[in-house]
Amino acid sequence: MLTFYFAPGTCALASLIALEEAGLAYEPHRLVFANNDQRQPDYLAINPKGRVPALVTDKGVITENIAIQAYIAQIVPAAKLAPLDDPFEFAQMQSFNSYLSSTVHINHSHKARGARWTDDAAAIESMKAKVPQTMAESFALLEDKMFKGPWVMGDQYTVADGYLFTMARWLSVDNVDINRFPKVSAHYARMLERPAVKKALEVEQGNPG
Amino acid sequence: MLTFYFAPGTCALASLIALEEAGLAYEPHRLVFANNDQRQPDYLAINPKGRVPALVTDKGVITENIAIQAYIAQIVPAAKLAPLDDPFEFAQMQSFNSYLSSTVHINHSHKARGARWTDDAAAIESMKAKVPQTMAESFALLEDKMFKGPWVMGDQYTVADGYLFTMARWLSVDNVDINRFPKVSAHYARMLERPAVKKALEVEQGNPG
Repeated sequence: MLTFYFAPGTCALASLIALEEAGLAYEPHRLVFANNDQRQPDYLAINPKGRVPALVTDKGVITENIAIQAYIAQIVPAAKLAPLDDPFEFAQMQSFNSYLSSTVHINHSHKARGARWTDDAAAIESMKAKVPQTMAESFALLEDKMFKGPWVMGDQYTVADGYLFTMARWLSVDNVDINRFPKVSAHYARMLERPAVKKALEVEQGNPG
Repeated sequence: MLTFYFAPGTCALASLIALEEAGLAYEPHRLVFANNDQRQPDYLAINPKGRVPALVTDKGVITENIAIQAYIAQIVPAAKLAPLDDPFEFAQMQSFNSYLSSTVHINHSHKARGARWTDDAAAIESMKAKVPQTMAESFALLEDKMFKGPWVMGDQYTVADGYLFTMARWLSVDNVDINRFPKVSAHYARMLERPAVKKALEVEQGNPG
């Protein structure tokens, strides 16, 4: 049995969507960041980073979206959530996911998590001010250079689609109009029609689905 | 034939070490950031992100260390650079690499690349001031919770070792004493003894090795 730790509104939605797309049974465990659940000793024993997502398996805990998503794709190959038999195509998917993780997510983090990188209140405010610019630049690159269509990797849906959808959900709070990016916007609408995505969004809000 | 684009002193060293450990033939292509090589049209045609590393293969270009390192491990399985036959162990390695990519590298980037996230000169200075703290906190976590020993993943050397070594090289410029972390420090010394690491460091400096 798998147990999945997440918090609403976070990047953990990407792995939650992957779990639902794979049809895996799992126990959802919803943390509330406003209550500082992620900093309590019982959760730090699971993930000492104090972050989400974390997937508890029979073998141990896996953290980081990139690792969890590829793991889900590998243990349920029939779901075809990654190009598992082609190292080059697998690398392309991981490269896309890595850009989301280490550039797009980081851009967004400067809106509400600036205190990670400075103790100065004015500096934190100046970081917030640039988030619409950095997010728009990243999504322009995703739109123009990286997104193949109709899915991220082309004809085959992969875990990268759930990850892009998760990042695209942040555009409105980051004051970027998703309609500036027609391919990303159309992809977002298609994602909302997928039963697994609908289910994941229900689970994220604390509903059994 | 592979062509590998890198710049000295960057995270690209991690993939360079992986190429050498795998014994792959490749043409090294050294960019000089001081000359803004990474922003020239010919390089942007290869990697529109204007970053390193980039690995050009017969099938196309792969960017991002996480993707390149796993790709090298997969196309040369005999080198045993990743636990390819165990999805859980592969996920553990990818999780480690993802932490380096999206947390440790990002901490370090706030020293010299603060202008990515703010346009305010005072804010950039305040970010620099916190880098020793964030790097030390990340390496304390690596040392205490993540590093298995004698290699990152335990008994088997993997691409994660070259990546950790690359991040550890930044500690001195970030004003963090590596000796605060005995396991990381001993690992760093062991890495310097490996022929592939010696060769990669020569190539990084523009020598044929």
